[in-house]
Amino acid sequence: MKFRLPRGMRDLEPEDFEVVEKIRSTFLEVSKLFGFKLMESSPIELLSTLEAKSGPAISEEIYCFKDKGGRDLGLRFDLTVGMTRFVASRRDLQLPIKLCSFSSMWRYDEPQYGRYRWFYQWDAEIFGSKSVEADVEIVDLTHVIFDKLGLKNCFIEIGDRKVVEEYVRREMKTDDEDLILEALRALDKIKKKSTSQIIEEYADKGIDEHVMRKIIEFGKIRGAPYKVIDMLEEKEVQNLKNLKSITDSLHARGIGGVFLSMGIVRGLDYYDGVVFEVFDEEHVDIGALAGGGRFDSLPSVFGRPDLLATGVAGGVERIILALSKRGLAKSKEEQGMIYVAYANKDFIKQATRLASDLRRSGVRVEADLSGRSLKKQMEVASSLRARYVLIIAPREYSQKEIVLKNMGDGTERRIGVDEVVPFLKAEVS
Amino acid sequence: MKFRLPRGMRDLEPEDFEVVEKIRSTFLEVSKLFGFKLMESSPIELLSTLEAKSGPAISEEIYCFKDKGGRDLGLRFDLTVGMTRFVASRRDLQLPIKLCSFSSMWRYDEPQYGRYRWFYQWDAEIFGSKSVEADVEIVDLTHVIFDKLGLKNCFIEIGDRKVVEEYVRREMKTDDEDLILEALRALDKIKKKSTSQIIEEYADKGIDEHVMRKIIEFGKIRGAPYKVIDMLEEKEVQNLKNLKSITDSLHARGIGGVFLSMGIVRGLDYYDGVVFEVFDEEHVDIGALAGGGRFDSLPSVFGRPDLLATGVAGGVERIILALSKRGLAKSKEEQGMIYVAYANKDFIKQATRLASDLRRSGVRVEADLSGRSLKKQMEVASSLRARYVLIIAPREYSQKEIVLKNMGDGTERRIGVDEVVPFLKAEVS
Repeated sequence: MKFRLPRGMRDLEPEDFEVVEKIRSTFLEVSKLFGFKLMESSPIELLSTLEAKSGPAISEEIYCFKDKGGRDLGLRFDLTVGMTRFVASRRDLQLPIKLCSFSSMWRYDEPQYGRYRWFYQWDAEIFGSKSVEADVEIVDLTHVIFDKLGLKNCFIEIGDRKVVEEYVRREMKTDDEDLILEALRALDKIKKKSTSQIIEEYADKGIDEHVMRKIIEFGKIRGAPYKVIDMLEEKEVQNLKNLKSITDSLHARGIGGVFLSMGIVRGLDYYDGVVFEVFDEEHVDIGALAGGGRFDSLPSVFGRPDLLATGVAGGVERIILALSKRGLAKSKEEQGMIYVAYANKDFIKQATRLASDLRRSGVRVEADLSGRSLKKQMEVASSLRARYVLIIAPREYSQKEIVLKNMGDGTERRIGVDEVVPFLKAEVS
Repeated sequence: MKFRLPRGMRDLEPEDFEVVEKIRSTFLEVSKLFGFKLMESSPIELLSTLEAKSGPAISEEIYCFKDKGGRDLGLRFDLTVGMTRFVASRRDLQLPIKLCSFSSMWRYDEPQYGRYRWFYQWDAEIFGSKSVEADVEIVDLTHVIFDKLGLKNCFIEIGDRKVVEEYVRREMKTDDEDLILEALRALDKIKKKSTSQIIEEYADKGIDEHVMRKIIEFGKIRGAPYKVIDMLEEKEVQNLKNLKSITDSLHARGIGGVFLSMGIVRGLDYYDGVVFEVFDEEHVDIGALAGGGRFDSLPSVFGRPDLLATGVAGGVERIILALSKRGLAKSKEEQGMIYVAYANKDFIKQATRLASDLRRSGVRVEADLSGRSLKKQMEVASSLRARYVLIIAPREYSQKEIVLKNMGDGTERRIGVDEVVPFLKAEVS
């Protein structure tokens, strides 16, 4: 097995890539409507850049190596770090700037079923705006992307790290920042584990059972935005200005299917304000299909504290899973194809000429290249789900006609050689 | 400069990526017309796979490294090796199969002006057909791609490695295979160097001046296909069957802008029959914009001698250069954008709501997020080359109207709040 795939790698076969492409084109179309510009930052970064925010521990989880000049490099593990490094390095850019990427990345995780070390994500970020309008614009964009993908049962849960932190600090009555972080991490587990499991786990880490129960209860606060605001006010949360503005803005934009949830905290390294995640209502077990939030502190790491940032990233694999579960992963487009066949090998040149002319007119055409029998050609046409088969046969061709077989109803008729292109061009358009 | 880009790397900024995307969509559109399926093979391969055809020397020219498990891996240096490895490993695929890819790859070259260690290529291959019709189909595809890109002054030069080799062997009267390879390599230099330069260079390598001159003259044979066939017959070349079939098939398909040239040999490692290259007539100095041919021996390396293969690969950087020289690299599309402005900050919610509604109707919209002055907003709209600006102003809005400014002629009129979406939707479609 000298030529096997490396461990954790895979090929994106045509059937896989068709869905990737569907997600890509939907993402690009919607991002464009919102004024985001497509870019791609370097897939190879200095290791120091990749470590900038998360610290040297990250090198355990990524592909990193020395180049021939002895420099420490790594393959990107997301699209956010490179894009932020790019924007931070360019003081000439007019702010705010809206950028997006759709590309692949690498992580050196232990391979699991359906999880690979190479995968695609999409990513959209606004740099240089501190306004909640920027955060809500990201949520709006995300909403329209899932809508256009046909995943209309997806909902968005929005949280605010600062609100959750305020509550956790108040209840824990401690200055131990590590312990506070641990408690925040616990909230991330509410969707996956039972309350008693979490309490037990964190009791071992030194968080009081009673306090942990209250924190978990707080993390379970979830509902329609204005309703949650009321609940938080009842709990005497002070720092509600941000969530209130977001709620007003969501309302003003008429964005539905959005909840506030105190259980959304996400990557603790990155996010520092509003955070959100997208779930499929009927398949919450897949996990978040996309997520994002405000990450004002990342640009600081690259020397640009002025560069406030908010954005979203979506996982292509999980979205494919959600699309598959709804039968939306397969494209139905194949049927537009035309197959050009010949009754015998003497007509292969006429067939390839006709195929060539049709393609130049924008018609998707397949034709045999290797002189196979008509029977075999018809089998191929069938397997390709061709809509029509054109058959070039000696008698008909001598009369300047071609047999046109409609594969839908099985009927055949003759068509003039000169009429074929205009007829099919009109049929498939 | 802890956060600089690694040497030889770069970011594909929005302006660059716009052209990449234009080439990508043209390539995908045309490939689809021809029945090619899009896929992407793994970007990371075992080093043994990458070395399979070219030998261990290739590791000097690529990114290779050990993973955490001590395995020797490398980043792909083209799209052909991985695609061939994939097809070779899958005996269940119905042949012939037409596959294509558009993706990036890496080479550890010494960085030069305009050349990077990370770059994009497109690639289309037919596996499992020995017919010249497959070769011509690849040429046909290539022709339509350049046509659709607007590079109508490109021409295609087709050669046949076997014909050239026959002539070189006859003239050199030697069994020294290395020397024959050297002479073939010399032909690759005809477009770049003078005859006397090449003769001098190869005299040092032991090729007789008189013989070299004859070989160079042979390499300069170039012209309309049937004319070249005649010239080769005059030179008593025996092995012309393949080139004749290709010429007939090109003629039958009505493919113009194609020449036969005995100076096209390409990568000596890969190709073993028909080879071709694409040049811009007025910018031959850019070098080949795409090239391909038959590479039947590569699948053998992966254990599949039955899997005959022919294909084409195109360099995205060089095509961008050719497009730029013709002023085709910039997209003109920007002008469809609409800008939603507000006379004062109190109307920011109304503006973002209108922007949101328009986007959901498929209209590309930009709006201010951070409460800037109307003057500043109009400047931004101008710099974005907005087609219309919608201005939400207190007096008009109280009468359920919005100011619509046509940025083309500078005229302003009022439009009913409910009419805005249908009007602009019709305008931009």
